[in-house]
Amino acid sequence: MSGLILCFGGVSIGVREWFVVYYFDYNATTPVAPEVFDAMVPYLRDRWGNPSSMYAFGHALKGVIESARESVAALIQADAGEVVFTSCGTESSNTALCCGLNAHPERRHLIMSGVEHSANLKTGAYLESLGFRVSYLPVQPDGLIELDQLEATIMTDTAMVSLMWANNETGVVFPIVEIGALCRERGVLFHTDAVQAAGKIPIDVRTASVDYLSLSGHKIYAPKGVGVLFVRDKAPYQSLILGGGQEKGRRAGTQNVASIVAMGEAARLAARNLDAEINRLRILRDRLEGGLLKLPFVCRNGDADARLPNTTNLGFSGIESEALLLLLEKEGVCASSGSACSTGLLEPSHVLTAMGVPRSLAMGSVRFSLGRMSTDAEVDHLVSVVPRLAERLRGVSPKMWF
Amino acid sequence: MSGLILCFGGVSIGVREWFVVYYFDYNATTPVAPEVFDAMVPYLRDRWGNPSSMYAFGHALKGVIESARESVAALIQADAGEVVFTSCGTESSNTALCCGLNAHPERRHLIMSGVEHSANLKTGAYLESLGFRVSYLPVQPDGLIELDQLEATIMTDTAMVSLMWANNETGVVFPIVEIGALCRERGVLFHTDAVQAAGKIPIDVRTASVDYLSLSGHKIYAPKGVGVLFVRDKAPYQSLILGGGQEKGRRAGTQNVASIVAMGEAARLAARNLDAEINRLRILRDRLEGGLLKLPFVCRNGDADARLPNTTNLGFSGIESEALLLLLEKEGVCASSGSACSTGLLEPSHVLTAMGVPRSLAMGSVRFSLGRMSTDAEVDHLVSVVPRLAERLRGVSPKMWF
Repeated sequence: MSGLILCFGGVSIGVREWFVVYYFDYNATTPVAPEVFDAMVPYLRDRWGNPSSMYAFGHALKGVIESARESVAALIQADAGEVVFTSCGTESSNTALCCGLNAHPERRHLIMSGVEHSANLKTGAYLESLGFRVSYLPVQPDGLIELDQLEATIMTDTAMVSLMWANNETGVVFPIVEIGALCRERGVLFHTDAVQAAGKIPIDVRTASVDYLSLSGHKIYAPKGVGVLFVRDKAPYQSLILGGGQEKGRRAGTQNVASIVAMGEAARLAARNLDAEINRLRILRDRLEGGLLKLPFVCRNGDADARLPNTTNLGFSGIESEALLLLLEKEGVCASSGSACSTGLLEPSHVLTAMGVPRSLAMGSVRFSLGRMSTDAEVDHLVSVVPRLAERLRGVSPKMWF
Repeated sequence: MSGLILCFGGVSIGVREWFVVYYFDYNATTPVAPEVFDAMVPYLRDRWGNPSSMYAFGHALKGVIESARESVAALIQADAGEVVFTSCGTESSNTALCCGLNAHPERRHLIMSGVEHSANLKTGAYLESLGFRVSYLPVQPDGLIELDQLEATIMTDTAMVSLMWANNETGVVFPIVEIGALCRERGVLFHTDAVQAAGKIPIDVRTASVDYLSLSGHKIYAPKGVGVLFVRDKAPYQSLILGGGQEKGRRAGTQNVASIVAMGEAARLAARNLDAEINRLRILRDRLEGGLLKLPFVCRNGDADARLPNTTNLGFSGIESEALLLLLEKEGVCASSGSACSTGLLEPSHVLTAMGVPRSLAMGSVRFSLGRMSTDAEVDHLVSVVPRLAERLRGVSPKMWF
């Protein structure tokens, strides 16, 4: 067995069930690293005090939180005081937009791209309903934006530019250093959603002139339910969650000590292994991609170079991705498409649509994303099963899109 | 040793350190129940998929989440579909106010009491800065509100009444059934912060005509970092956190499966043991209170009857509570005061101040709150050490307040 061996506790019958998963969906979520799990357990079992309490059993946890803050800061070249712990990447991104729009109430314009995560896009739509203007920068067929176009879109009343560091579906990496420099020069606050970039490529908030940056725990081997917002020292701030003075008044609610510790440990692990993992995963991803791009009617979506090392998005012309994913699951393979099945109708991914990928190809696109436990054997399994499944599906595809 | 025996893993030296804590601060936070810890661990170790994923390794977790939702619903007599999982009680309360004010944009008035948790009070202050009017209902010396006064405060443009079920500092329980009925009759949305009430007294959202109700995990033996907002079926809703369609579009962000499972298990345990715990803790609390009220210059803050069974708030006239708490800690006792030490100046609790407790007494008030692991022996330890400490402190108190 060459995949990830997973074990379920059989709740009703009291036995444990083992099975193999070939997991190619690290961009959706990652396992909790064993080191991270071990680091957080003491704070769920023994050291469960409230860090805001006056007695040592509580306030000693402040030191633990600060240590985690330093580890996260180190991953992104920030100062610890610039790290705010939140409940998830979505909350972080929401908070960043909240900061940007509160900083200059007279500025009613916001810029993002059409390929942002829904945490930004849905907030953009909501802000439009409140009367703000939101410009959605187009992307080119390679998934990249044009800097000239960004520059031309910045108005005198632009409050904030929010552009992701790396795209979740294609892995395409925006030119963040140039974007940051441009925003700084034009006096516009800059937020970047680095949820997919962190732990996969180097992040330096200084070089990139970032004002706000969002991270998510469960994309870097920490558990779900914890995120980070980097807030540049002296950048304007407005809490989204109001209440107690936790996180130096920047995020109310009792601090989630165990998950914060987990986030710190995950950041430390990510920083330690980053260069080696980048090389290892790029080689593995290229092996996967090479194996599948050899097949007929398969092409890559997104720029080949400006891209995360772990991600490939492949279009299978003449195939419905949902059908391919269902067959892949029967082979133990977990992967995903960006298309959303709502009200029974499949819609193509907004990312691929924004890139101008033809609808027929977009409807047949699948994202494979690798991670810490990915192996050659897993990739070989995938490459060995896809041709047969693709051929089988091409025989039964409805012809309406082609 | 009669207290709670706790164990720290000594991180730097690799040994484990055992010590005894006499924990009287369950209203600040509770331990994670062993059953809850055991329930959540599989979702941190093995079943770490993303519930929004298409393959079974992910979406099978939806059933797990729905099962937790049913357990939480059962604790408060709600339907599962009315339960939204959030990241904490503060987020729940913030969201409820957000719902209330978005439901009727022309209604610019909000009612809360002066003794609410900061999750409400800080939001109230923020809303005032945006031009909303907020009425802070006064409380009587017993900590209760007057229903007549609430009725007289409701205006034609009142959007929402937000009143806590039970007070965190005094344990005083508001007449929620009557408040709910009044709000329903007057067509005003009603939110109650039940963070302190849940698991301590019966909660019935139907009898109480509640529209929104906030719960927090770490007050009912679940971990920090998870909360619940009950939203009555058909009550207006506006997400505070915007993004993906999780929680049926009511709370964006990847669902925190492990903590949601923990919340479900905690709710199940709370419901199962509720009646027995109410009796046990009331007897224990009365034993504690009886022992300390016998001392000179000690009096109870808050109504004796309309009160949580686990909480007592005692004023030690002529003593600074912070000093008493420091000495208590040396005896292994964890308790708290509501006073906040900000900028080096001690301020009396806003709850006691609102009740008209004289400043001198408010500055010497301590909250003792009991919970699942509290024992006779712990209470006896407390009752045995306080007289000596109080006497010692009365000899050194500054006289300015008396």
